[in-house]
Amino acid sequence: MAVKNIPYKIYLSEEEMPKAWYNVKAHMKVQHPPFVNPATQKPCSKDDLAPVFCDECIDQELNETDERIAIPQGILDFYRMFRPSPLVRAYYLEQLLDTPAEIYYKFEGNNTSGSHKLNSAAAQAYYAKQQGLTSITTETGAGQWGTALAMAASFYGLHLDVYMVKVSAEQKPYRREVIRTYGANVIPSPSDTTEAGRKILKEFPGTGGSLGCAISEAVEKAVSTPGCRYVLGSVLDHVLLHQSVIGLESKAALDKYGVTPDVVIGCVGGGSNFGGLIAPFMGEKLDGKNDIDFIGVEPASCPSMTRGKFVYDFCDSAKITPLAKMYTLGCGFMPSANHAGGLRYHGMSPVVSQLYHDGYLRAVSVEQTKVFEAAVMFAKCEGILPAPESAHAIRAAVDEALRCKREGKKKVILFGLTGTGYFDLAAYKQYNDGTMTDTIPTDADLAKGFATIPDCAVNRGLL
Amino acid sequence: MAVKNIPYKIYLSEEEMPKAWYNVKAHMKVQHPPFVNPATQKPCSKDDLAPVFCDECIDQELNETDERIAIPQGILDFYRMFRPSPLVRAYYLEQLLDTPAEIYYKFEGNNTSGSHKLNSAAAQAYYAKQQGLTSITTETGAGQWGTALAMAASFYGLHLDVYMVKVSAEQKPYRREVIRTYGANVIPSPSDTTEAGRKILKEFPGTGGSLGCAISEAVEKAVSTPGCRYVLGSVLDHVLLHQSVIGLESKAALDKYGVTPDVVIGCVGGGSNFGGLIAPFMGEKLDGKNDIDFIGVEPASCPSMTRGKFVYDFCDSAKITPLAKMYTLGCGFMPSANHAGGLRYHGMSPVVSQLYHDGYLRAVSVEQTKVFEAAVMFAKCEGILPAPESAHAIRAAVDEALRCKREGKKKVILFGLTGTGYFDLAAYKQYNDGTMTDTIPTDADLAKGFATIPDCAVNRGLL
Repeated sequence: MAVKNIPYKIYLSEEEMPKAWYNVKAHMKVQHPPFVNPATQKPCSKDDLAPVFCDECIDQELNETDERIAIPQGILDFYRMFRPSPLVRAYYLEQLLDTPAEIYYKFEGNNTSGSHKLNSAAAQAYYAKQQGLTSITTETGAGQWGTALAMAASFYGLHLDVYMVKVSAEQKPYRREVIRTYGANVIPSPSDTTEAGRKILKEFPGTGGSLGCAISEAVEKAVSTPGCRYVLGSVLDHVLLHQSVIGLESKAALDKYGVTPDVVIGCVGGGSNFGGLIAPFMGEKLDGKNDIDFIGVEPASCPSMTRGKFVYDFCDSAKITPLAKMYTLGCGFMPSANHAGGLRYHGMSPVVSQLYHDGYLRAVSVEQTKVFEAAVMFAKCEGILPAPESAHAIRAAVDEALRCKREGKKKVILFGLTGTGYFDLAAYKQYNDGTMTDTIPTDADLAKGFATIPDCAVNRGLL
Repeated sequence: MAVKNIPYKIYLSEEEMPKAWYNVKAHMKVQHPPFVNPATQKPCSKDDLAPVFCDECIDQELNETDERIAIPQGILDFYRMFRPSPLVRAYYLEQLLDTPAEIYYKFEGNNTSGSHKLNSAAAQAYYAKQQGLTSITTETGAGQWGTALAMAASFYGLHLDVYMVKVSAEQKPYRREVIRTYGANVIPSPSDTTEAGRKILKEFPGTGGSLGCAISEAVEKAVSTPGCRYVLGSVLDHVLLHQSVIGLESKAALDKYGVTPDVVIGCVGGGSNFGGLIAPFMGEKLDGKNDIDFIGVEPASCPSMTRGKFVYDFCDSAKITPLAKMYTLGCGFMPSANHAGGLRYHGMSPVVSQLYHDGYLRAVSVEQTKVFEAAVMFAKCEGILPAPESAHAIRAAVDEALRCKREGKKKVILFGLTGTGYFDLAAYKQYNDGTMTDTIPTDADLAKGFATIPDCAVNRGLL
């Protein structure tokens, strides 16, 4: 589809910002199975979840019927500090690749958290405040999510405890410092502030911690502190809902110029940015109104969809959360230590998993040296240093554009550029020095991970 | 002036981007005195400057008559990757301060260099390429300028050697890595690649280097390499000219909503962002068409205007450059080591100096703990973590808004938010830890600096 005079950057005006999120589940004929309480093997009720999550977030989590869920004015007031984000026509990348394809990217990195994470952080902090809570807790690994939530907690006036994987807190002191600057309390995990932390410290003195351990500490702190709840940055349906602003803005900007994407690409870790980017386009596809090729891109070193199993599994490695039916490598799977970027999650958003299982989207995996090759190419021609996570989507978009060139096809490609790589320069250094390597798990590695999937009633017949 | 319905962020469209820079000198009744060759004590001719700088930049440097200088399409093509930048109405800051003032800021930090430096880097790299040069050199301290020039050199296909002060290269390995990612060659200075570097290494083995030494190396490399020129990121008239896009866009955005500033505030180090921000407003003031209060904000630890002398001085501490008539603390002045931000330059742009001398603008100095207090306040309420340099302007804007509150005056304040602080978190850590201190040079400290000002023919009667 040939369209003329498309600006390099398409900005919506503040009035054109979405006033409601898009709930793709309202269009799904097959819903993902419910969360299951591991003790009872029965679906989780609202009461099961209420001690951990904010009430409004649970309602959103369980909502399968409303296509639009209004964004409260108090959240729009926060969104306008960093939204609408630009949709960019990648003219320079197209030129460099000499492709007949049109490439667009939605850039979510122009805010101090450096990523799309702020979209859900704002919403969850707002709802916590509305519920009369005084504090929230979370865990963070690399720190993007921790930064986003610290900004939101500061804006709405909530105390925030961030359990930061100890080795990350030590390796990324500057990420930690941004979080502190926003007034949040950073606790290297494992810590002596929780039962879970003390137990691990006793068992493994000197350990650098893990995300699973940090989750355990954050959840324990939330359920044991009056007026406190736990907040999660990906995977869950309500997080994907909040991230649908990415897709809604992208669609509104493309609609303005009469452009319809043929391919929509996003990186996938827990699945929240991808789920949000594709939401309104996927809703149409589920209604038979388009035939867009949706591609989730995961690291070859953590291939949840391309090589995982579609079963019930714990959402965390400490096995304290409910069970979710999703594509998973097993809650005990750990990607190789040489894997630089994020997207290390063993599982996948249940919504994305169900859509993948039902054939509405594709998944591909890419190796990290190829990812960084695309990242550096992109930084040079489009002027933005991408986060390693985002560069997975760039890699797939570049591959798609090159395929268009080989086959002489003029497709419209849209991809999500979720964030910037300013705090990932140790990984860039590895790439620049030529010391970066790829590790693809062997079938034996995967088998070890699969062995950590619970063999329980809801998985009977699936394992 | 009450204006309704102003959006939080005002974006110009790509068609509204300035097509020409604004040369404030065309409106100055008194031009700053010319650069002087220290050997002859005579004004520098174009031929004196040609071995060091690109021809087009020298023409722009010497142009005192044309108000508008067209921006070539090749530079506009680069500008559109990060321009127009947003003009933001600081509603949340106004609310927090409970001030009757309207506060606006022009945000130049939404690009990978993290600052306004890219405006001149793009222009200078373009002109170097047009002249048929194959490489350029520069020095960088903190690294913002080095990053910007690396991005521009990569875009236009030029080799770039960046002499980076050795202690900075070691303390800021990630800044260095961004520069490397864009394909530039980073050489910790002093190095054994130049005569000047080898001399200093022999004299002071193990030295961490200085900006003066890095300039010497970069200039020597440029004049001794065929097809190579040296590029500077501030101070000079042509750099201020390129930075006028900041002021032009700000004015266009404000004009759209019928807003006229009463006060325009910018931080000053070499003076390029401030000179660029005020340019079109100052042109009107020089023509008697407005009475805007222009305020340049400098660190109390490096008070070039508020406590300096208006004399001829070297532009660098190594005394290899031409002499410029400017406000200076003496080319040998070094701000105290506890000074965290940039703005460490001993002198000041000759254009800004002349305007200050003639009473068209004011200068104030602020202490760094007060600067960081304003920075953190701003980060929390406006959602952007500012560069320490930019936070000098925030401090002055906040003080001005609080004065409006005390005096019950409703002024319109515009300030320049030049960049982000993602690579300055060591300084934020100092502030957060409560270990940051202020140092104001004593008169004796200043006297030592003034003693390094050359006692020469052009300074006769001034010293």
